Order: sequence, then structure tokens, then C-alpha cells
Amino acid sequence: MTSAVDALAPDATAIAAALRRIRDPVRHTPLERSHALSNRHRRDIHVKLECWQPTRSFKVRGAFNAIRSLDAAARARGLVTASAGNHGQAVALAAADIGARALIFAPRDAPDAKKRRIRALGATLDDASRDYDEAEARARSYAAEHGATLVHAFSDPDVVAGQGTVGLEILADLPMVRTIVVPVGGGGLIAGIGIAVRARSPATRIVGVQSVETRVMHDSLAAGRVLELPVTPTLADGLAGGIDAASLARVQRVVDAIVLVEEAAIARAIRTLFEDDGIVAEGSAAAAIAALDRLQDLDDGPVVAVITGGNIDSARLTRILQDR
Amino acid sequence: MTSAVDALAPDATAIAAALRRIRDPVRHTPLERSHALSNRHRRDIHVKLECWQPTRSFKVRGAFNAIRSLDAAARARGLVTASAGNHGQAVALAAADIGARALIFAPRDAPDAKKRRIRALGATLDDASRDYDEAEARARSYAAEHGATLVHAFSDPDVVAGQGTVGLEILADLPMVRTIVVPVGGGGLIAGIGIAVRARSPATRIVGVQSVETRVMHDSLAAGRVLELPVTPTLADGLAGGIDAASLARVQRVVDAIVLVEEAAIARAIRTLFEDDGIVAEGSAAAAIAALDRLQDLDDGPVVAVITGGNIDSARLTRILQDR
Repeated sequence: MTSAVDALAPDATAIAAALRRIRDPVRHTPLERSHALSNRHRRDIHVKLECWQPTRSFKVRGAFNAIRSLDAAARARGLVTASAGNHGQAVALAAADIGARALIFAPRDAPDAKKRRIRALGATLDDASRDYDEAEARARSYAAEHGATLVHAFSDPDVVAGQGTVGLEILADLPMVRTIVVPVGGGGLIAGIGIAVRARSPATRIVGVQSVETRVMHDSLAAGRVLELPVTPTLADGLAGGIDAASLARVQRVVDAIVLVEEAAIARAIRTLFEDDGIVAEGSAAAAIAALDRLQDLDDGPVVAVITGGNIDSARLTRILQDR
Repeated sequence: MTSAVDALAPDATAIAAALRRIRDPVRHTPLERSHALSNRHRRDIHVKLECWQPTRSFKVRGAFNAIRSLDAAARARGLVTASAGNHGQAVALAAADIGARALIFAPRDAPDAKKRRIRALGATLDDASRDYDEAEARARSYAAEHGATLVHAFSDPDVVAGQGTVGLEILADLPMVRTIVVPVGGGGLIAGIGIAVRARSPATRIVGVQSVETRVMHDSLAAGRVLELPVTPTLADGLAGGIDAASLARVQRVVDAIVLVEEAAIARAIRTLFEDDGIVAEGSAAAAIAALDRLQDLDDGPVVAVITGGNIDSARLTRILQDR
């Protein structure tokens, strides 16, 4: 039962070790109180600005932790992964950091800005796959055939440990945090944050967010097993794709709830974050702000929304900023 | 001769003291190598991301240094300043930080985003002035009449010392820096950086940038005296306004050159910073990137461009991103 074993890793100790391993270029990002959001929601709202990491997303945490953990032989054989974009950029940067080759399989409809930046970081990009699942299947085949190391976007325990360092930084900066709101795609980030925070602050609530169009984890949690749902267009493209049993098992253990948000609410959140707070968030990240309207029934106490990334096509951003 | 005396302050010691005084909420911002800019210019280009400070500009450095230096009596009498926007936001935040009142005089054509955020920070905004010079005259009158402390945007030695901390952070992160490119309005930032860097790294070149429409410092340096030039519309609105003798004297001492950039080059720089590097820069800040084309005759060695702020109206940003 590989999935049951994987679901017990990483533990909190591995996440603490990851925090030391990833520093420079991975940043302790600011946790900033938003005056505008706090006024609007009449509670203390902070944003964790992972959109200001190198490559503009939290994904560098997992990629650097996994790739810096490799031995010399594995480094020489090169790295491969499947990614809608942000994980691909992160693997490309971490591979360059250790001087290894990286091959990234991406779905053909991934945002242009993300594809261009993967190439600029020196990685090879294959963007011929129909969707994320096909990209992942091709990455697995390539790894098996060529001996390259597959750095899985959300199930590799070292990747989950890296993502979990977000939780350690939040606790360091705001020990009294009552609720942490985290966008959920494959579930690696929320699993890592949940494992880290549960160990040190069991009363802190971990709330996931998906768009209605990317509700696989939400529905799988309700069903108690991994579902496969059709892919539909969404502003939260970074959350699209399937999940696996290990990831579901981790999320079952450490997540309190997952809420769903509509596309219109995501667009509105992108707009207000830019206009009120000077923050550019991609749709997946803005979903965390869209979810704040759904948290009225929670207890009082400081809320942290994780702004997971800032990679948004300029055409999409301008369309959203003009639509009022 | 007040101006001659002022021009000798601050010294490098005052800037080192400022660095300790302003920490939290003022950030040691990232100095990030831009792969895209380095490839394009075939030299090592780094960006100093002051656009990620609280209030999204470097101005918090000077405001916090000046305001945290005040005694209890001065704090009780309140603060007043004149600002095109970013300095006003910074004074508003620093005043709130110590629990003091702040009154901000702004020109009526300052960007809406900047005005809204000044009010959101709890300060009182008077935006009835025709231009920056009128706003400054009214701020001086108010200070004289009511005993409030005037926190001048670029001539107060404590403000200049605060801005100079940018230079200390650049030297700490990249000791071999050969050239630092700094947008110039009133001259407080480049004077502070110049004083700090000259003291520790005399071989580092300090280059200022103005838009053709905001060339007062450039022309005054050439003339050897303070000129008054008509105000014309520019994307670099943060650089508009007059200068004074103390600021000119500081700049004469520590700045190697000031280059001028066209409006079209600023717009292009805003676009490429967003699309290639995921950075939102206001026009004044993007001017530093526009200036990189003008540095071909300089010696080789790492270049740092100070991205001074990220406050740009969404209407202006969308217009620039769509214009190709």
C-alpha cells in the first residue's frame, strides 16, 4: 500500500528540516495585514505573500527541498516533472541552482507567461499534452525510460515538506492565527501546512479553497475516495488536475473544511487585491480572498489567506481590471 | 546658509542608525537577479524591489526614520506633509504606527489609487492643490500655524537618511555592485544612497534617472543652480515637482550622472517588467529600467536598478499592457 505509507510522510520534523534546506533563494515572505480586507470583513485579515517568491509562487519551496535533497548520481540523471506552470518554473529554477537538466511536461493550454518563463530559466518545455493528467503520464514514462528523477507536483513527500514551510513561517510571524485559508489543487500545499501547523498549534483551523470548476479534492473528501471529474475552464487554472490517494489521505488528516468559490468572486478578488493592496494575484491565489465571504460562521480571531502565486497573463489581468 | 548646512547631513553614520530604527514594518526588500533583463542587456542586472514595501514604495524608509525620531511633544502636535502620493502614504502609515495624527497635502491630479490608500491608512487628505509646489507651500503654512511637524519629502535630513538605507542593503546583498540606477524626483533617495555607498564602496557608480518631462535635477546640475521648470504630464508622476538648494548640493556631491528617458521607453519598461519578471512598477520606478539602454558606455560589472514603487492606477496599467 504505497499510498498509505506516503500519507504518513512528511512529518513535522521533515518540514523543519526543509525550512533550513531551502533558504536562499527561497524567501521568508511577508505576512502583511491588509487594511482594506480587514475593514471589509470586520476581522483581522493577513495575506501571506507567496506571490513574491522567485518565480512568483510558493512552488519553489517544494522544488528546492526535493531537488537539494538529491544525491550526485540523481542530479546527473536530470529531473522531469508535469506542471500547469508554477511547479514547472520552480523545478526549472531549482535544477539550474544545482546545475542539473530539467524537462517539463505542461498542458498545452497553460498560460503563455508561465511557459515563456520556464524556457527562460533554461529548462526544456514539452507543451504538447492535452491536459495535466496526460502531461503527468508522459512525465512518468519519461522518468521510467531515462532514469530521470520525477519531482511530483503534490505527492512527493519532500515536495509536501517544502510547501509545509509556509505554515512554519505563518506561526513564527502570527502565533495567534485562528484560521489559515489555503487554495487547493493537488493538495500538497495544504497538506504540508496542515501537518506543520497541527503539530505546533492544534487549535488553528486549516480551510481549503477550490473554485467550483476545480472541486476534485472537495468532492473526493465528501466521497471518501479519489474521484475523477471533467476539467472545465477556470480562472484558477493552477488548481486544475487530478489528485491521488496519498494526497487525499493527508488532506483527510489535517484539513478542517474545503469551501468552493465561483469564478465571478475570483475575478472580483483579483481586482480588489490589485486596487486596494497593490498585489497581483493569479486566479488560484485570489480564490483564498474570494473564500473570505464564506467564513462568516467561523469563530473570531486572526485569519491568514495564502496568496499562492502572482503569475497571470497580462491579457487576462487587463480584462479583469476593466470589467466593472 | 541653511541649505549649505543641510547639505552636509545626513552622514553615513546617521544612515546606519536609520537602518536599525526603521525595521518592522520596513523590510529588507529582495535584490533579485532578472534573467530576462540580464539576457537582453548582456550584463548582470538586479532589481531592488522597493515596490514590495508596505505602501508599495521606498518612502516608508524616510518617513519611519523621521517620525520614529520625534519626541513625545512633537508626536502630540501631529504631522503634516506635501506629497504626490507615495510619501503621503508612508507618512500616514508611520503616523499610525506611533499613534499620531497626519495631514497630507496632495496635488489634485495625483493618482486615485494613491489618494484612496492615504485615506485608508487613517490620515486626513487635502487634495485641493494645483500642483506639488502649491501643496508644499500649504503644508509649510499649516505647520507654521499649528505647530505640526513638517516631514519634508526629500530635504529633511532624517528622511534622506532613511532612504539611504536602500544603499546599505544593496551593498550587503551584492558587495561587488558596479552601478546603481536610481529614479530622481526631489533627490532624497539618490542622495541617501549616494552618501551611504560612497562611504563604503567609493568605486560604485551612482546614476540617476529622470523622465524628459521631469528633468529639473538634470538641468539644475548642468546649470549649477536650482532651476524652475514647467510641469508637463508624464508616466513618472512620482518624479514631478521642484527641488531645493540642499538637495541639489547633496546630489552634486554623490551622483555621477543623471540620464533622461522618454515616455515611450517608460511604458515599454512597465510592460516588460510585468510580462517577463512578474513585477508591477509605477512609471517613476520603470524609468530605472528604461535607462538601462543608456548605460552601454559604462564599464562592465553588476548593475542594480532600484524599483522604487508599484503604485499605478489600474486604468493606466491596463492601457500600457494593451498597447503593443
